[in-house]
Amino acid sequence: MSTTIPSDLVDLLERPLFGSLGTVRLDDTVQVNPMWFEWDGEQVQFTHTSTRVKYRNLQRNPAMSLLVTDPDDAMRYVELRGALAEVVSDPTGAFYVRLGKRYGNADQQPPPDSPDRVILVMDVRTVTRH
Amino acid sequence: MSTTIPSDLVDLLERPLFGSLGTVRLDDTVQVNPMWFEWDGEQVQFTHTSTRVKYRNLQRNPAMSLLVTDPDDAMRYVELRGALAEVVSDPTGAFYVRLGKRYGNADQQPPPDSPDRVILVMDVRTVTRH
Repeated sequence: MSTTIPSDLVDLLERPLFGSLGTVRLDDTVQVNPMWFEWDGEQVQFTHTSTRVKYRNLQRNPAMSLLVTDPDDAMRYVELRGALAEVVSDPTGAFYVRLGKRYGNADQQPPPDSPDRVILVMDVRTVTRH
Repeated sequence: MSTTIPSDLVDLLERPLFGSLGTVRLDDTVQVNPMWFEWDGEQVQFTHTSTRVKYRNLQRNPAMSLLVTDPDDAMRYVELRGALAEVVSDPTGAFYVRLGKRYGNADQQPPPDSPDRVILVMDVRTVTRH
């Protein structure tokens, strides 16, 4: 177990790939959703809103697991397990816009739900690779 | 909420795509792993072994969530939420071989861990789409 990303898999976190984010629901079942993300070398940040199921899930159980798979080679993947460390308000949608641009929309505008936008900051505790 | 797969997303379950399977760990955190699967129109089947973490997770908490994303268009995805319904022994690895062939290896052989191989059968209770 390590929190270091293997150097040969760092591209999976640097490329604008969708991640599969697992959270634990209020009834102790599990959900997995596709998510934009940004990795800064230590933490992973997601854009989300404070009105959705996943946000409520994380208020009760902060556990998060992010799986990123290479769309060109499904045998290349990395799973980051950890927990919600912080929720940062993003009322102008600035982080959403930054992620939108990262994911290829040069003209990304703030979303209609900007007033509810938050940044979910994930601490990484375990890295699993293939 | 429905258990019907939208007809325009059925291809995601029919094509040999890797799914992202979420399970709840013994410490109530979450893990997400890439998995081969086969969907028969009602249930989803996975090959696994009885010696691994995911198997122990499911013995305690049978909740499962399978996210399948189109590698050519990440905005097309379907999430199947449900639970482990049955574990079927596969001591010759026959189901593993069938899945291997489904995923493109015409000469798939049984794996070395065939004696421990099981088929995880998932009941689908909720289908979420984009």
